Amino acid sequence: MKFSFKNDYSEGCHPQILESLLRNNFDQQAGYGEDDYSKKAKDLIKAKIENQDAEVYFVSGGTQANLIVISSILRPYQCVISASTGHILNNETGAIEATGHKILSIEKEDGKLFPEDIIPVLESHQNVPHQVMPKLVYISNSTELGTIYTKRELENLSKFCKENNLYLFMDGARLGHALTSETNDLELKDIAELTDVFYLGGTKNGALLGEVIIITEKDLRPDFAFNIKQKGALLAKGRLLGIQFLELMKDDLYFDLARNSNQQAMKIKKALSERGVQFLSDTSTNQIFPILNNKIIEVLSEKFEFYIWKKIDENLSAIRLITSWNTQNEPVEEFIKTFNSEL
Amino acid sequence: MKFSFKNDYSEGCHPQILESLLRNNFDQQAGYGEDDYSKKAKDLIKAKIENQDAEVYFVSGGTQANLIVISSILRPYQCVISASTGHILNNETGAIEATGHKILSIEKEDGKLFPEDIIPVLESHQNVPHQVMPKLVYISNSTELGTIYTKRELENLSKFCKENNLYLFMDGARLGHALTSETNDLELKDIAELTDVFYLGGTKNGALLGEVIIITEKDLRPDFAFNIKQKGALLAKGRLLGIQFLELMKDDLYFDLARNSNQQAMKIKKALSERGVQFLSDTSTNQIFPILNNKIIEVLSEKFEFYIWKKIDENLSAIRLITSWNTQNEPVEEFIKTFNSEL
Amino acid sequence: MKFSFKNDYSEGCHPQILESLLRNNFDQQAGYGEDDYSKKAKDLIKAKIENQDAEVYFVSGGTQANLIVISSILRPYQCVISASTGHILNNETGAIEATGHKILSIEKEDGKLFPEDIIPVLESHQNVPHQVMPKLVYISNSTELGTIYTKRELENLSKFCKENNLYLFMDGARLGHALTSETNDLELKDIAELTDVFYLGGTKNGALLGEVIIITEKDLRPDFAFNIKQKGALLAKGRLLGIQFLELMKDDLYFDLARNSNQQAMKIKKALSERGVQFLSDTSTNQIFPILNNKIIEVLSEKFEFYIWKKIDENLSAIRLITSWNTQNEPVEEFIKTFNSEL
Amino acid sequence: MKFSFKNDYSEGCHPQILESLLRNNFDQQAGYGEDDYSKKAKDLIKAKIENQDAEVYFVSGGTQANLIVISSILRPYQCVISASTGHILNNETGAIEATGHKILSIEKEDGKLFPEDIIPVLESHQNVPHQVMPKLVYISNSTELGTIYTKRELENLSKFCKENNLYLFMDGARLGHALTSETNDLELKDIAELTDVFYLGGTKNGALLGEVIIITEKDLRPDFAFNIKQKGALLAKGRLLGIQFLELMKDDLYFDLARNSNQQAMKIKKALSERGVQFLSDTSTNQIFPILNNKIIEVLSEKFEFYIWKKIDENLSAIRLITSWNTQNEPVEEFIKTFNSEL
Repeated sequence: MKFSFKNDYSEGCHPQILESLLRNNFDQQAGYGEDDYSKKAKDLIKAKIENQDAEVYFVSGGTQANLIVISSILRPYQCVISASTGHILNNETGAIEATGHKILSIEKEDGKLFPEDIIPVLESHQNVPHQVMPKLVYISNSTELGTIYTKRELENLSKFCKENNLYLFMDGARLGHALTSETNDLELKDIAELTDVFYLGGTKNGALLGEVIIITEKDLRPDFAFNIKQKGALLAKGRLLGIQFLELMKDDLYFDLARNSNQQAMKIKKALSERGVQFLSDTSTNQIFPILNNKIIEVLSEKFEFYIWKKIDENLSAIRLITSWNTQNEPVEEFIKTFNSEL
Repeated sequence: MKFSFKNDYSEGCHPQILESLLRNNFDQQAGYGEDDYSKKAKDLIKAKIENQDAEVYFVSGGTQANLIVISSILRPYQCVISASTGHILNNETGAIEATGHKILSIEKEDGKLFPEDIIPVLESHQNVPHQVMPKLVYISNSTELGTIYTKRELENLSKFCKENNLYLFMDGARLGHALTSETNDLELKDIAELTDVFYLGGTKNGALLGEVIIITEKDLRPDFAFNIKQKGALLAKGRLLGIQFLELMKDDLYFDLARNSNQQAMKIKKALSERGVQFLSDTSTNQIFPILNNKIIEVLSEKFEFYIWKKIDENLSAIRLITSWNTQNEPVEEFIKTFNSEL
Repeated sequence: MKFSFKNDYSEGCHPQILESLLRNNFDQQAGYGEDDYSKKAKDLIKAKIENQDAEVYFVSGGTQANLIVISSILRPYQCVISASTGHILNNETGAIEATGHKILSIEKEDGKLFPEDIIPVLESHQNVPHQVMPKLVYISNSTELGTIYTKRELENLSKFCKENNLYLFMDGARLGHALTSETNDLELKDIAELTDVFYLGGTKNGALLGEVIIITEKDLRPDFAFNIKQKGALLAKGRLLGIQFLELMKDDLYFDLARNSNQQAMKIKKALSERGVQFLSDTSTNQIFPILNNKIIEVLSEKFEFYIWKKIDENLSAIRLITSWNTQNEPVEEFIKTFNSEL
Repeated sequence: MKFSFKNDYSEGCHPQILESLLRNNFDQQAGYGEDDYSKKAKDLIKAKIENQDAEVYFVSGGTQANLIVISSILRPYQCVISASTGHILNNETGAIEATGHKILSIEKEDGKLFPEDIIPVLESHQNVPHQVMPKLVYISNSTELGTIYTKRELENLSKFCKENNLYLFMDGARLGHALTSETNDLELKDIAELTDVFYLGGTKNGALLGEVIIITEKDLRPDFAFNIKQKGALLAKGRLLGIQFLELMKDDLYFDLARNSNQQAMKIKKALSERGVQFLSDTSTNQIFPILNNKIIEVLSEKFEFYIWKKIDENLSAIRLITSWNTQNEPVEEFIKTFNSEL
């Protein structure tokens, strides 16, 4: 079996989660998220973001979180703005449009949106009522390309959105990775303050499944549970999500797992950089996009699985390597060793 | 803590599932249902229904299964027919309508639909193009009231649907219970033959979550996976569903669990019947609806949790008792004892 | 050619409208409802309802008005309540559900909704978040059965809706007929005061096409035009609607036409009543439902077109007769004469 | 009053239409498109396209036609491909997305789509089931920029679509203009042969309102009327549409009107070209986009209304001039004279 760097959801979950599931298995609990574990996990999260008024909900995955959040916010004629790299644009089978809403795409190579990107979109959507009304800005942190927002950048974007009557929604499928990146200067509570709604991903950071949706904006809070149920996202055994996030959040296991993931990727990045390798984007999280000679790629492919991301020229291609909460030293070192031996 | 007879999803899952999750936890697998466990589970199911051409998919829950199946089948102007007790009508926050489709409701106290119920609906929907076109019949087995279909009844309904260009969809959230009921004469492969699409519920029969959608009708098979992804129902770690159904299906654990559930309910039914208690509907699965004196209900409520289902008159109410795959003898006997002591 | 009493849209429009279209035909005007005629017609309507803050919009037909109004008001998980006779329930090909919303139907033979009808629906929809949330009450005046609301009834319903956080929407496809009925005690401005949004039908009262949507509730006013455009209902040549309603509204032609329509129906009603004929519902507008001997129906059918509405018994059926703004004395007298000669 | 070159729907309709409406006004007819005029108009159109099997429907406007056609064809996970200039992308308030479908946009300055534009979109949408499935190609003829397709181009595109299992849909809001352009080599029956569905616009070519949808592809024909009714597009007085298209189609008035429109625009084009003016796109229909000095634009603005389409540099801007079926020589000559006097 080759070791896979294809994604961060190849393995099961952190063993502590399975142990807790076993330990509490025969405990009778209320269904649909009214169980004690879910309640405790929610309290823990509200404490971490220092906001007792926030609404906290668990759902199963990222596409589900995106479609429920976006469709719950927008009126029929309103739309969402996204970078062209946004997961909602290209990787969710039209899930957002299926709820009735257009996504306005802004061409961005590194996945990050700034006010200056959004201004022209607002300016070109003034022909009332013949065009959709932009109402929500969707960003990812870390982005689909592994990049992250600085505190200054997020503050600017947040301010811009407020001034322009736009809601700000952060897809945090890999928010743990962003917040534990060595170049990060944001805290979880900053995210809660600077966005109107965001989610914290479990699936890509050590859970079997699950994302936590956190709504801080007052106007978006009421009745959100209806949307979750209507979209088929309310698990009868909500305990499965509650127990997982309780384990991940207490003692900050969640952030430890993300940190490991980042560090393993950075080891490879450092080793390759030292040999002069260029990268498609400059990342500090668990995704790296080294540009390699096709021959080296072929050799690496014999031992490791990964995606060839982009052809650069006749000889060079960028590959994507993703490390996970569970990536150990061994495959990382083996990868570096294989690479070095081929130079 | 009171013992709860409120539903069949109060506990976790069968321990064999957790053991398998633990055992296979660090095995790297492809995501999105392409893992080996999911493939094996699908093969096992196709063998059990004796149909290698069927398409088999896993999703997380019943509402999700219902909305994906129904919206994948119907054209915008087509609608689904359901008994008035149908889960899709009253308990799914308008999930079906949210995908654009009307549900035509047929008043039925016991939850079962027969051709003679459907004929008047077809007759009163002939005003083309001013009315929706009925195209799909939704049934549950066992129904929301615990009743089941006989083989003869299902054959008649299946034939009627074919003759009238209607698809037949069975909600099998509790299909295990139906098929192991002492009054049942249907087999799993009959269900596959007599319906166009059905699902087999895991959530209410020993899984943490999960339903298996099985599509036998040729016209409904292509491209179904797109619908699952679009509705946010495709788990990145599909192994979670694959492993569960592999455990439940091999050695027929699934049916053993359902049988236990039924038997515990039947014990209570028998004991109460012997004391002259009447029931709201005559069930042979894991749901019973005894009509009891309010004073007895009050006493039982001190020790057990259950829903008061319907007020019958000043003195009498029907309660709903649901047993689960994990219901042991003790609470059942205690319930009977408490009841007897109050007579 | 037989004379048709089948509906009130068999003829073209009041000639004054065509004359105005001819007179103003070559006048260049702004598109999409920004023309002078539309503006004047809106001003006239706001003056008539004595509410300068109301928003007034023109659309082409009743189904279009219903689906735009309802989908613009409701959040995804909210639903509309209607009498079982409601046009939106049975005669619009699932138009409301196609926008994502369930209609809760209340069985009512005469088409009118009262608070006591709605209370049980609210009470049985308390299982948050598993059920849709009722948010809008849809009524018709005159109803699909020709009946009308009294001022007292509408006041009570309006008060009840406000107390229960429900919006009240009146389908006024035949509001002109209601307001000019001899038993009516409501004025147009009462309708504006007692509902949150309503429309005034042109199609069934002398226009070629067109309904005026009038929004009085402050929360429902903003951005409504987007919904009209998105649903394909914004005519490029909005002048067509503006000119029509300008002609209909000035000098109260609209009400004169409706009054004629009612009076012709009442003539038949009176004549038949005097001969002992019973009616399915007691109406005072332009729809009557006499219960006649099948033999008489057959004779009448040779000279007149109308719908057989409902079989009463072996010998009797109710027929529906509808008169229009343009129904003259002659066919009405001929109908009565034919009837009398057959007794 | 300034003369307006802003669009082709500023005036009413061809007087022959109003005369026919007057002449037939009191004729009682069946509703909802079952009137004699609609039937005759449909027969006439089927004769003109030489296809008796086609389905022909009338609706009120272009956005309505687009959303009904597209939503009737696509399954939930399928999407439509359009040039970036497509009317459905930027000018319909998200009408297509509101029916649940994504539009994939291809950047095209002149509004025309070729197979080589579409190939990369198909290639980049192979990640089943994570991406929408392209299924329908939307083109306009003439395009939103006034350009037209040659017979060779349309044949190639048609062939490409068939080979790739894509349906081809032509927005013909200005198809009359395309077919009467001096550079055109397509006939109406070619359009019917080379597309699967198209529409022929009345609103922008002499009707009060109305587009004719013509479905030639067998698979798309059944049940289409349901979609029209469901979207609120079925006029009770369908005669209004029938009479208009009967007048426009008999004796080819429709094409005469379009030809006049084109010729008036071409007069301006020729006059300006002779003075060395450049154009944003090379058009031969009723839209021209001359690039003019801002000072001249200012002078022209004093006498004429038109849109400033695009800033070219500090001194130059492109303006859009649209002529209509009713544009007479006088304003055209006056425009040219004013332009010349300012050089």
